[in-house]
Amino acid sequence: MSTFAETEPGDARIVLAHGGGGAMMGRLIDDYIVAALDNATLRELADGAVLKNESSRIVMTTDSFVVVPLEFPGGDIGRLAVCGTVNDLAVMGGRPIGLSLGLIIEEGFPLARLRRILDSIAAAAREVPVDVVTGDTKVIEHGLGEGLLINTAGVASLDENVHTGFDGIAPGDAILVNGTIGDHGMAVMSVRNGLEFETPIVSDAAPLAGMIQSLLRAGIGVRFMRDATRGGVAGVLADISERTGLSIEIHEDKLPCRPATRAAAEMLGFDLLSVANEGKVVIVVDPADADRALAMLREHKYGIEASMIGKVTAGDPPLVELVTENGGRRIVQRPYGEELPRIC
Amino acid sequence: MSTFAETEPGDARIVLAHGGGGAMMGRLIDDYIVAALDNATLRELADGAVLKNESSRIVMTTDSFVVVPLEFPGGDIGRLAVCGTVNDLAVMGGRPIGLSLGLIIEEGFPLARLRRILDSIAAAAREVPVDVVTGDTKVIEHGLGEGLLINTAGVASLDENVHTGFDGIAPGDAILVNGTIGDHGMAVMSVRNGLEFETPIVSDAAPLAGMIQSLLRAGIGVRFMRDATRGGVAGVLADISERTGLSIEIHEDKLPCRPATRAAAEMLGFDLLSVANEGKVVIVVDPADADRALAMLREHKYGIEASMIGKVTAGDPPLVELVTENGGRRIVQRPYGEELPRIC
Repeated sequence: MSTFAETEPGDARIVLAHGGGGAMMGRLIDDYIVAALDNATLRELADGAVLKNESSRIVMTTDSFVVVPLEFPGGDIGRLAVCGTVNDLAVMGGRPIGLSLGLIIEEGFPLARLRRILDSIAAAAREVPVDVVTGDTKVIEHGLGEGLLINTAGVASLDENVHTGFDGIAPGDAILVNGTIGDHGMAVMSVRNGLEFETPIVSDAAPLAGMIQSLLRAGIGVRFMRDATRGGVAGVLADISERTGLSIEIHEDKLPCRPATRAAAEMLGFDLLSVANEGKVVIVVDPADADRALAMLREHKYGIEASMIGKVTAGDPPLVELVTENGGRRIVQRPYGEELPRIC
Repeated sequence: MSTFAETEPGDARIVLAHGGGGAMMGRLIDDYIVAALDNATLRELADGAVLKNESSRIVMTTDSFVVVPLEFPGGDIGRLAVCGTVNDLAVMGGRPIGLSLGLIIEEGFPLARLRRILDSIAAAAREVPVDVVTGDTKVIEHGLGEGLLINTAGVASLDENVHTGFDGIAPGDAILVNGTIGDHGMAVMSVRNGLEFETPIVSDAAPLAGMIQSLLRAGIGVRFMRDATRGGVAGVLADISERTGLSIEIHEDKLPCRPATRAAAEMLGFDLLSVANEGKVVIVVDPADADRALAMLREHKYGIEASMIGKVTAGDPPLVELVTENGGRRIVQRPYGEELPRIC
């Protein structure tokens, strides 16, 4: 995987001086961080990165990542950090122009593992594509679980003609999801619980900026988008209902999910609607554009299993309702929040 | 200090569900974070913040803060986070337009203390002025020392006529510092070591964007600026010498420092030149503008004790030299890095 792993002495580890602002930190930054993420802006190693921007509006976002384990089927904390931040920019309608990378590393962390995660960050950033343009590194003595926390912030340009938000949502609007739900959360929880399935559960961590920009560029009437991370699809739908005062009806038979993911959720007692995704976006669109949007999503590698899962209704009081496979109805609650610690 | 502290049940504490993306997290964000940092952009609670920007160049930066203790004379981790990030933007010549706030909190952290630190963040941001426009909150089980880490990223507009950087530095340029050195590092280390002085050592944590922008607007020939945080003034001078291939001569009798800070440094075995500051900037200016720049700095509350500490020379090989008070010369080394763990 890593192009550099071979050159690593197996026992080289992070020490406190790697975070002290002196010569040791300089070498860590040059030999590991800049080596992996190399680009002209980062190479300047200035106090900040200068970015060109042609738009009169920019989008800014941030996310911290505390996932345990650091590496899991389908990704690692590095891929998660890039995807999470890029997706937050993308659902705001932005075109990512720069990411920052804040590393908080525990003393004793293996440098070979750090290099592997930095390579993963670089690969995910290339896929977007966006550069990691600035960063910060701190070393602390102990206590981070598996030894690494990452914060990423991101900046995007926002075109003049993009206007999405809760206030554009109206009864009748269609609700789309770009694929199977719950895979990230159940991939991490399966590893943590030592569950094994015939088909392994693989995180869906993916950068969605390209797919989302293609919808916007095609003039699809996108009302609102949100990536369904912590709190899952249920959390996003609860937000929509609460902020608009409208109801939502979704159909169980339209919710894409993998059998192994569903099996793991049932075994561990989770509702897949509340489980975190890292490559799934809930898209509310003008019903006239719903079929075209769905077709466009399905042409993209991260939208092959896209589905129209339901619609916005005028129902009062505002509720999110699931129509089950056998025609029953149940209310989808906002997740309370303690289901899945350190999932991202 | 806190306007809300009275309403806090004394024993209310962070629990894992505060970071889970559900109803508990919603209440934490509304009642604590948005309540303290209130502004129209943050209140949207979207995946990212939309910022207006009239410049074709923006500056982006990030910093994580792991200081122990969280509160110390002259500041706390919150004030540090705002000042550190704003100062990185300011030394790049930027006018801050938005900050992000990533909180990583340990389960059990007292909510009253969180509110106090959020109020401190709000006060520092008002002073700049800049808004905290977006954020992220994670809760982990244990192990953060005092229970809170903060990451801030920042975005600034960069005017067309601002061009600073290593490549503008030339022999003869004057080197200024805006006041006493080493106060932040020694304030934190004194608390950690239980040292007490008649005059307490107070951190210099301060946002310098206003002071720096006034120099730039007045057309001072600023070649280069860097805030002297980890690695201190010695670290900045080493960077300048290394990146330009030029030498630097500074004069011990021109280095402003407080007697108590100097006493603490001597007692604990630190060289003040290598000790972290959080409100000090090293400014390299056209020698023709040096007196005017110094006068302007001294008019600002964070530059009253500004001093011209030395100059850039053509000396070969490139070295940083200190002319001592009794006329001797010693080479100032780049700090190695392990002197002061968790100082910022």
